[in-house]
Amino acid sequence: MTHQTLESGDRPAGAPAADRGLGRVATQRVVLFPEGDPLRLDNGALLAPVEVAYETYGTLNAAGTNAVVVCHALTGDAHAAGHHGDPERRGWWDVLIGPGRAVDTDRWFVIASNLLGGCRGTTGPSSIDPRRGEPYGLDFPALTIADLVRVQRALVERLGVRRIHALVGGSLGGMQVLEWLLQAPEQIDRALIVAATARLSAQNIALSTAAREAILRDPGFDDGRYVGRGPGPRAGLAAARMLGHVTYVSEQALETKFDRRRRDPDAPPPRDGHDWFAPDFEVEHYLHHQADSFLQRFDALSYLYLTRVMDAFAPFERDDAAERLAALAGAGTEVLVGSFSSDWRFGPEHSDRLAAALEAAGASVRRRAFSSPWGHDSFLLPIDPYLREVAALLEA
Amino acid sequence: MTHQTLESGDRPAGAPAADRGLGRVATQRVVLFPEGDPLRLDNGALLAPVEVAYETYGTLNAAGTNAVVVCHALTGDAHAAGHHGDPERRGWWDVLIGPGRAVDTDRWFVIASNLLGGCRGTTGPSSIDPRRGEPYGLDFPALTIADLVRVQRALVERLGVRRIHALVGGSLGGMQVLEWLLQAPEQIDRALIVAATARLSAQNIALSTAAREAILRDPGFDDGRYVGRGPGPRAGLAAARMLGHVTYVSEQALETKFDRRRRDPDAPPPRDGHDWFAPDFEVEHYLHHQADSFLQRFDALSYLYLTRVMDAFAPFERDDAAERLAALAGAGTEVLVGSFSSDWRFGPEHSDRLAAALEAAGASVRRRAFSSPWGHDSFLLPIDPYLREVAALLEA
Repeated sequence: MTHQTLESGDRPAGAPAADRGLGRVATQRVVLFPEGDPLRLDNGALLAPVEVAYETYGTLNAAGTNAVVVCHALTGDAHAAGHHGDPERRGWWDVLIGPGRAVDTDRWFVIASNLLGGCRGTTGPSSIDPRRGEPYGLDFPALTIADLVRVQRALVERLGVRRIHALVGGSLGGMQVLEWLLQAPEQIDRALIVAATARLSAQNIALSTAAREAILRDPGFDDGRYVGRGPGPRAGLAAARMLGHVTYVSEQALETKFDRRRRDPDAPPPRDGHDWFAPDFEVEHYLHHQADSFLQRFDALSYLYLTRVMDAFAPFERDDAAERLAALAGAGTEVLVGSFSSDWRFGPEHSDRLAAALEAAGASVRRRAFSSPWGHDSFLLPIDPYLREVAALLEA
Repeated sequence: MTHQTLESGDRPAGAPAADRGLGRVATQRVVLFPEGDPLRLDNGALLAPVEVAYETYGTLNAAGTNAVVVCHALTGDAHAAGHHGDPERRGWWDVLIGPGRAVDTDRWFVIASNLLGGCRGTTGPSSIDPRRGEPYGLDFPALTIADLVRVQRALVERLGVRRIHALVGGSLGGMQVLEWLLQAPEQIDRALIVAATARLSAQNIALSTAAREAILRDPGFDDGRYVGRGPGPRAGLAAARMLGHVTYVSEQALETKFDRRRRDPDAPPPRDGHDWFAPDFEVEHYLHHQADSFLQRFDALSYLYLTRVMDAFAPFERDDAAERLAALAGAGTEVLVGSFSSDWRFGPEHSDRLAAALEAAGASVRRRAFSSPWGHDSFLLPIDPYLREVAALLEA
């Protein structure tokens, strides 16, 4: 069985594949939990249908043992690598995934899917509630990271995977990897948890709360009933994204990229409030661009749901934590826990605590603290020592 | 001439004054620039009337040489110390100012005024524009920190002050102190600049932009015409305050105070979005409280104006910087530049750059890096080494 969404026809003959990455890929959809076979969530609710958007790259071997499963972060989607028609606009983890890359699609069968609760093809709060024939809105059930993982496990099974060669994810993606390791380690040979945490700090929660409140208090949110009816909480979602984005990059990265440069240094002094609050500094233009493009591709309800999922995650504080950790140690999964020096969202101290808990339980853990000036988003960037370490993990 | 707003009658005889602080005080108002004598702003605009709300504590000596002038931060006001009727609700710098305190009101004549552009009694964008008989809104002129200082200089002169014994301020207040030192150092004997900066970083600007955009994009902002017409951009202002507040406290402070404690740890798991986004963690309750009380006392237009004033401030990059610095060195003013270890808004590196520029020009500077876990807001807190250093500055 081949799950090949790669169309390699647009790669010129003679060009080394490793230099060009994947070609054109396509997102597919599958209903994993139809109305007669609903998903049971952690809070007891039943959800159906659950449709999942996913992409695959490379070919599954006959034994079903060469899968690499990619878990995405808060605002990611199934389009992890390659392109959808414009070779300049590539998937969010294209630096990591492709022929000859750290996650080598010539060898591994890569699966990336959009999260439960998302808005990029997988069932989420802006999907239609079949009972009412209208978008769920806030009627969509509350989720946990364990729920997100259950859906991905069902997808992997559906695709014929018998063993997971590697499970990889950064940020919220890394949190899913951790939960998956604690939920069902026996099937997983290797795992990458990068720029992630096993426990949001009070500051982490506070920043997410501020972002969520911008959305929840926006009159356009209309108690979650905006989907299909109006523009929605665009003001709040834009502010949430700007705030979020500042926390994804380091102070040093912003300084290096923008310092205090103004787009028009020779502009006359502002006259009054009508001309004073428009973007002036380059860093402001950058944030406006981030917000504008985010509004085009992301849904406010998914933002609320997926950030709230993160707040609650505390796997080492569960009653069954010791038992789950022991099972992971017993499975012998090789775990690489990586962090980036300038990450102030889930910085090295988060990774250290996470890795220490795994080590204490006897799991096989390699810790790597990568030096990077680019902050939390470093896990998306072509930082060579990091890419080499991921490649080594997959080869081990 | 006595400017005594202290009502000491509510201090019980026998109780040491130093233990109780100032008693009841009152805010006063004065028109400094009437319609016939407008204030000329940096951008060339003329503004009148300019009314200023201020408080004074203690008594001006006959020579007019014992004044301590207090500059407030972004969301402060003229009510720096004492109380307005409820002894439990005290001015924002009460830990510093009072009988026997670091700024000893038994010896010094303390002046604190609300900023130009503010909303706590001094003329600002929500004041009535006399030309139109309506609130200014965005027609209110753009301001600079130099403009804010000009108004305070006019107040100090009006009150009969000949020399300023000490000029003190934290954060935006410290930026005003710095500008005042560069604008008119000859009258100032001592100055405290604490938790301040001479140059916002790209990250500082980005955080302020995110907060402003929450307000500007809120439909309730209505292009600044909400004053007296509607509730205004309450959603945006609340989100801005929550975001801002997270940056005023350190990660460690939030961790110590709140960790991941939930108000109701035994609550059943959330069912859906209707019950999932209400405050749950204690840190969320705290932020909601901060936002609610802020909405009751602060105006969104003033928030926009006063944060934008900070963005533009870069006194050492002006063409006349060397000349102004030389004048400060020549005046011989003693400057104490203080920072707090956990401040991530205007941390020690901001103070160090500021102090280094003053030192390089030959000014008399003492640098103090105070250890504190409480972040930017430390300058408002009773941190003994800091209070002692301020007391020593005033005694020197």
